[in-house]
Amino acid sequence: MVLKGIGASKGISMAPVLLLKEEEMVIPDNIIQDEETEIQRFHQAVEKSKGQLEKIKVLAQQKMGKEKAEIFQAHLLVLSDPELVNTVENAIKSEKKNAEVILDRTIKSFVQIFESMDNEYMKERAADIKDVGGRLLKNLLGIEMVNITQLDEEVIIVAHDLAPSDTAQMDKEKVLGFVTDIGGRTSHTAIMARSLEIPAVVGLGTVTKTISNSDYVIINGETGEVLVNPTEDVKNQYKEEQRKYLEYRAKLMELKDKNTATKDGKHVELGANIGTPNDLKGVLNNGAEGIGLYRTEFLYMDRTSLPTEEEQFEAYKTVLEGMEGKPVVIRTLDIGGDKEIPYLNLPKEMNPFLGYRALRICLDKTDIFKTQLRALLRASVYGNLKIMYPMVSGITEVRQANAIMDEVRKNLEAEGIAYSKDFEVGIMIEIPTAALTSDILAKEVDFFSIGTNDLIQYSTAVDRMNQNIAHLYTPYHPGVLRMIKMVIENGHKEGIWTGMCGEAAGELPLIPLLLGLGLDEFSMSATSILPARELISTLTKEKAQEIVEKAMSLATAEEVEEYLKSVIA
Amino acid sequence: MVLKGIGASKGISMAPVLLLKEEEMVIPDNIIQDEETEIQRFHQAVEKSKGQLEKIKVLAQQKMGKEKAEIFQAHLLVLSDPELVNTVENAIKSEKKNAEVILDRTIKSFVQIFESMDNEYMKERAADIKDVGGRLLKNLLGIEMVNITQLDEEVIIVAHDLAPSDTAQMDKEKVLGFVTDIGGRTSHTAIMARSLEIPAVVGLGTVTKTISNSDYVIINGETGEVLVNPTEDVKNQYKEEQRKYLEYRAKLMELKDKNTATKDGKHVELGANIGTPNDLKGVLNNGAEGIGLYRTEFLYMDRTSLPTEEEQFEAYKTVLEGMEGKPVVIRTLDIGGDKEIPYLNLPKEMNPFLGYRALRICLDKTDIFKTQLRALLRASVYGNLKIMYPMVSGITEVRQANAIMDEVRKNLEAEGIAYSKDFEVGIMIEIPTAALTSDILAKEVDFFSIGTNDLIQYSTAVDRMNQNIAHLYTPYHPGVLRMIKMVIENGHKEGIWTGMCGEAAGELPLIPLLLGLGLDEFSMSATSILPARELISTLTKEKAQEIVEKAMSLATAEEVEEYLKSVIA
Repeated sequence: MVLKGIGASKGISMAPVLLLKEEEMVIPDNIIQDEETEIQRFHQAVEKSKGQLEKIKVLAQQKMGKEKAEIFQAHLLVLSDPELVNTVENAIKSEKKNAEVILDRTIKSFVQIFESMDNEYMKERAADIKDVGGRLLKNLLGIEMVNITQLDEEVIIVAHDLAPSDTAQMDKEKVLGFVTDIGGRTSHTAIMARSLEIPAVVGLGTVTKTISNSDYVIINGETGEVLVNPTEDVKNQYKEEQRKYLEYRAKLMELKDKNTATKDGKHVELGANIGTPNDLKGVLNNGAEGIGLYRTEFLYMDRTSLPTEEEQFEAYKTVLEGMEGKPVVIRTLDIGGDKEIPYLNLPKEMNPFLGYRALRICLDKTDIFKTQLRALLRASVYGNLKIMYPMVSGITEVRQANAIMDEVRKNLEAEGIAYSKDFEVGIMIEIPTAALTSDILAKEVDFFSIGTNDLIQYSTAVDRMNQNIAHLYTPYHPGVLRMIKMVIENGHKEGIWTGMCGEAAGELPLIPLLLGLGLDEFSMSATSILPARELISTLTKEKAQEIVEKAMSLATAEEVEEYLKSVIA
Repeated sequence: MVLKGIGASKGISMAPVLLLKEEEMVIPDNIIQDEETEIQRFHQAVEKSKGQLEKIKVLAQQKMGKEKAEIFQAHLLVLSDPELVNTVENAIKSEKKNAEVILDRTIKSFVQIFESMDNEYMKERAADIKDVGGRLLKNLLGIEMVNITQLDEEVIIVAHDLAPSDTAQMDKEKVLGFVTDIGGRTSHTAIMARSLEIPAVVGLGTVTKTISNSDYVIINGETGEVLVNPTEDVKNQYKEEQRKYLEYRAKLMELKDKNTATKDGKHVELGANIGTPNDLKGVLNNGAEGIGLYRTEFLYMDRTSLPTEEEQFEAYKTVLEGMEGKPVVIRTLDIGGDKEIPYLNLPKEMNPFLGYRALRICLDKTDIFKTQLRALLRASVYGNLKIMYPMVSGITEVRQANAIMDEVRKNLEAEGIAYSKDFEVGIMIEIPTAALTSDILAKEVDFFSIGTNDLIQYSTAVDRMNQNIAHLYTPYHPGVLRMIKMVIENGHKEGIWTGMCGEAAGELPLIPLLLGLGLDEFSMSATSILPARELISTLTKEKAQEIVEKAMSLATAEEVEEYLKSVIA
């Protein structure tokens, strides 16, 4: 059987399936005869859960550092809490009911009590109890839990979608690919796959219902094909394809330390997009000339409280030092939209992509913003820092953000804390009104970086995660290209550099056009850098100009796409 | 107590409160001794429900026509169905339980059976049974039902929000105003209030929890004030204000049959936005020169199946004839987003405003689109029809829609059915890429109408219903104004007229600017027409040009708004 989805990260992989699927818990409710057996079952589940958590804690310390592993220590403490254990035991004895129904109720009432407390620390404990309680219940019910922190064999993960918390704790050595029901080329799963340099096929619809754990799959992250239980012949044929692809990658590696320039010597900068300091290795391996987008929101995810100034400072310093003086563009917090942070209790919204997110939250909850800016400024002495604000819709927000930045500077000076005086401050251009007023914005910032993922979404009014209208989401739309042109021209008029950090910057057919439009910096998944460098080396300024002229004269996205693909074919 | 919300429809009203709030139904579950009494209680509830439905049916026939009233006939049939009545009676006898719990279960199982049938007609019956069953249960439980179809006294409706189905069946004579928890100036409640010419205050947060049915309120739809239980002095003072406002409206009425023109004779067209043929009266009373937007989606709402070609034809014909040759712009189906049509079973979306809606649905479900186009073309011989496509993002969609239109034309010709050969076909400009490629679009359509409600929402990436970021949703943003300018210029270059049918077209401070930019047609709530006509009569072309020059030179939305408000102060 061959399934067809959206190829989201190039390469070929083959391995058995690991299906990530939340099983529904049905809690039986029975009168029991033998209370002692129930109490014993409960104790066994507690011990089993402790054993699992000890293992996960050790692994988490190795992979994510001590800070992040502490959450599992908190979970272990819950399991040793006599209050919880005694309540369950006594209720089993007095009510003569099975352990599951008693435990379920006890957990719920504990959570309720902690949640209602007017104390942030206690509220966080509620989340711990909920989490541990779920584990306990599953162990009682005999539900297998997939622990992706440590895997015994190489697998391809099949899931409805992958959350940032899934990919963060995943055993990266053993996961050879992703296959998901939903998503497109710019979904989190797709971006993570490219950052991990493993193939991914997304948007398959109901693949989690079609494929099961006993299956073996081959995935092609370029064509979007997923072959389920292929014959040996087919396997061998794909092994050959895989070999060729790896050979091509090896040849590209020769360009790793080369300058990025056209045949006639025009230089542009190729940077990488990263999510955590752990991505640095891939960035350096792929010959990036800088980091064009460091998404700091991952620092805030998969935990129960805000990261401290110190934690942030350490992360920023690690990245700045690791890049040894090469430019590092760090984007301030971009949460909301599809990136939720449960402990912030943000309002549920009807249209989160058009909602309270990113800079909008930072200008409202200024304490969060100030902590991040302090950490950034303190880290600025360790490298070539550029700070970037996301989701700017007009000049007023830039001025508000800069006023907060000035306050942070003054405080640091008053405290005698060092920071670099000459770091740049720029903005994402990802909202149409920002593109349309980029002449005004260019006068008050040091650089632009065009965020095509959101810019396309807003300019075409198409949710990029929505399968039903995916055909309308395209970087080749003449309206989108005109906005990009406008932004680059307005930037250059005021003498500031203009980059691009959306997925479009790494899309080969678009690169000649963007080059011709004068884009100064392209930031992309690390694995796209070398193919981009190779392509640019085959072009000339004159050729790129010709391509611009022709492409900008076409009326439809379909014509533009066809033409630009023919150019690099 | 004075509450402060968003003034959404001008004027002052005072009346007792009618609180619309869904009461939660708690179904008691008891063993009973006396089955006969339970059966009798059940029969009483059936008879009471029949009486209510008979009344509603007669009223609905008078107000909404025979077609729409038929749903209540279907409900009456359910109540006379021996299958239902016998099942309930027998179960009460055999199980010795109270009527409520038996009825609730019986209704649910009937609904389930009908819903599972593979037949559209039977599925619709499931909805009828659910609806009638709810009424029966409420009558059994003694829950008062608010019947807004017929009211005994004048009231001000207080609700969380008003659905199109609420406003459609409402007793318009007796409702003097709306007050709601949520919404803004462009929400359905606000638009309906302006169309009904009654004051409204929206976005009050939790007003349904603060105000109860025993309260008396004064509302000021301009300032957004809601005065709860005012003193007699205050009441008298507001009565005086109300008198002055009505006097001002009366004076405006002198402009009703006047031409709309600047002091130096430049004519523009002032049209009205309507939702149903019932709005025609208000349109004519307020001296509209045409209809700039007929929102046909109301034809599809508040029912259980698609409207037939014939029903649509009748509605379009009524409006075209009623306008006696004046231009009538009819927009093709614009559903999705915040306008749901349950029987179409559209997918739940994460960001409905960026989703599968309007023309996107029509180009996919072409049968629905063809039926509407056939009805429109058949009606075209009765007046001055202009057809408008909503949610166009680029020229490809226009070509697809026109291809379907051509097919419909050919079919009509083959069937020998008459239609006007010279109606215009235009598009809404409400998606940024459409504005940015309006030069391309202008070559293939007959007119543009700028839909500012959505255009602002997409260009600023702000959900217009989201209270948390309402400060960023503004028609005064320089980026929005530049897009409007671009669209008008591109339209005129190709010799087509450009109108505006978003709420901005009726916003007085914007009118001088839009006039200066060369907008040809302004379409607005009927009640805004005369104030707009008065304002325009005080302006000259030269003055409007000056205003454009100054306003377009400002950098922020705040500065633009302040300046434009000062101009008309």
